[in-house]
Amino acid sequence: MTGRAPGGAQEETGFLAVDSGGSGLRVVVGVPGRGALAQRSSKEPVRTGSRGIDPEHLMRQLVPMAASLAAETGVERPTTAVVGAAGLATLGDALRAELPGLLARELGVRSVALAADAVTAYVGALGPRPGAVLAAGTGLIAIGTDLTRWRRADGWGHLLGDCGSGAWIGRAGLEAALRAHDGRDGGSAALLARAEEMFGPMPELPGRLYPRTDRAAVLASFAPQVAACAADDPVAAGVLRAAARHMAESAAAVCPASGEPLIALTGGLFKMGEPLLAPLERELTARLPQARRVAAEGDPLHGSVRIATELARGTLDLPMDEKMLYVPAEHGS
Amino acid sequence: MTGRAPGGAQEETGFLAVDSGGSGLRVVVGVPGRGALAQRSSKEPVRTGSRGIDPEHLMRQLVPMAASLAAETGVERPTTAVVGAAGLATLGDALRAELPGLLARELGVRSVALAADAVTAYVGALGPRPGAVLAAGTGLIAIGTDLTRWRRADGWGHLLGDCGSGAWIGRAGLEAALRAHDGRDGGSAALLARAEEMFGPMPELPGRLYPRTDRAAVLASFAPQVAACAADDPVAAGVLRAAARHMAESAAAVCPASGEPLIALTGGLFKMGEPLLAPLERELTARLPQARRVAAEGDPLHGSVRIATELARGTLDLPMDEKMLYVPAEHGS
Repeated sequence: MTGRAPGGAQEETGFLAVDSGGSGLRVVVGVPGRGALAQRSSKEPVRTGSRGIDPEHLMRQLVPMAASLAAETGVERPTTAVVGAAGLATLGDALRAELPGLLARELGVRSVALAADAVTAYVGALGPRPGAVLAAGTGLIAIGTDLTRWRRADGWGHLLGDCGSGAWIGRAGLEAALRAHDGRDGGSAALLARAEEMFGPMPELPGRLYPRTDRAAVLASFAPQVAACAADDPVAAGVLRAAARHMAESAAAVCPASGEPLIALTGGLFKMGEPLLAPLERELTARLPQARRVAAEGDPLHGSVRIATELARGTLDLPMDEKMLYVPAEHGS
Repeated sequence: MTGRAPGGAQEETGFLAVDSGGSGLRVVVGVPGRGALAQRSSKEPVRTGSRGIDPEHLMRQLVPMAASLAAETGVERPTTAVVGAAGLATLGDALRAELPGLLARELGVRSVALAADAVTAYVGALGPRPGAVLAAGTGLIAIGTDLTRWRRADGWGHLLGDCGSGAWIGRAGLEAALRAHDGRDGGSAALLARAEEMFGPMPELPGRLYPRTDRAAVLASFAPQVAACAADDPVAAGVLRAAARHMAESAAAVCPASGEPLIALTGGLFKMGEPLLAPLERELTARLPQARRVAAEGDPLHGSVRIATELARGTLDLPMDEKMLYVPAEHGS
């Protein structure tokens, strides 16, 4: 494993750990035993074209970041790279086919793993232990494993699911605002006041929302208002209770039924705090009495670092699955 | 009123009645007392630009259709025109400002009414009687009047409302299919089978839905599958019961509370028949015991014809409201 750095000791074998998602690319260089040494990030999301996630666009961003990280840390030739990518399962064909070769040719990397962002979220939160992780922001996905296979639930986007996500909570809150505006049952005057404050007169809201391309994010932007109203407004509290129930349904679908699985929460939505966490803890306790709640150790980039560390050491022992965690044969070995 | 047709008798004063919506333009020429004489239609929806619904684009379609109708019927110079238009309330500024002048200049029309499509739906279904009308297809709106003012509820589009609409039912059905796919609570194996038959493997569904511009119509295309499953599948039946409840909530928000209001249903969604109509009748009876259910007399184009007939006769007696039913001062009077 140290063939390309003949003067280095085994422990100086470096790795690159990548987290590629909707808000851009983050890259860490590290060394097993010493962990992450330095980080770079780009705000440009890797492009998705007709062939799915574009491996060449990813490399065009990664190569200069890797060079800059090498200059800073002295880790010149990482032998291992792990790329956690949103959309790997459905849009990862070109990535699986071409990225290992590109990483070998352009950066001298020999060991590669490609991971769905749900897997890096899981490993970042729980490491190689059985359980379930809820990852929630604008969207929502649950991922679980008994260490023999990966299971996922929801993550279908704001029109088909993502039940309990930021977009889901915001959308339900705006529906309650418009119910109050119309005089329909299920309305909330408090949410209507917040919606008018945020978006202006309600009759103009459809014209402001539908033409946008980031509709899910616009919906999610209203979720904190629902949380802010929940203490005094039964409709807002009901939205968060329903969100918590949907989250627990997704966690229950992926959590191992036996053993002593762990359960962790990760992602920006949980910054909402008690108004969401209190009903969620109740739902998780009721539906998953066998699972123990633990705090997430780290984020998806941390998961990518953990996978890279174990891959570089030859100790990676997680379920393999082309769409979830894919380790092709080594280049040049 | 007959100044432009000096040889004609009073009853030969013609009118144009227009229904402009998402699927194109329909135009009728008629004469009060003789009703609609002939019809033309175009499949090109009137364009919506930065100024809202484009009056010149409407006229470019209307003028040749009016000429063709005049040649067929001998009604050469209609003095009255009624335009029912989807989006009048929020996108009708340019239409209100310019269409009366354009109709006067290009077609010699003196009396004009602009109506929201909800108003033409109402008048088409119930005529000038107090009550409430549910208009449902891909979307859903409730409109009601006590003959002193118009009230509307919902109609906010597939992300913010249209609760109970075709898009709403189809979306809920697809969510239930994906719940079954994931092993989450609330899933329906029957709906999953129908969804796979219609859209292919579920993991590909997000990639097929989200890039489209007609997402609401794609969701609504699954609604008939929900109806088809409802007899044997409790989840599908539950979706239709919830849809019926939301429809009744909207009807209750607009229906006069006193008197003997009528209630009617109009629009393509109700072709779904008993699986939807049976729970809807129950909900309407429970929530609106004061209202009498009647069959809709006709569609929105029929509503436009009725308004035009009364406007031409000088007997139009419906609530006026710039956004719902707008009759500007006559041109040339």
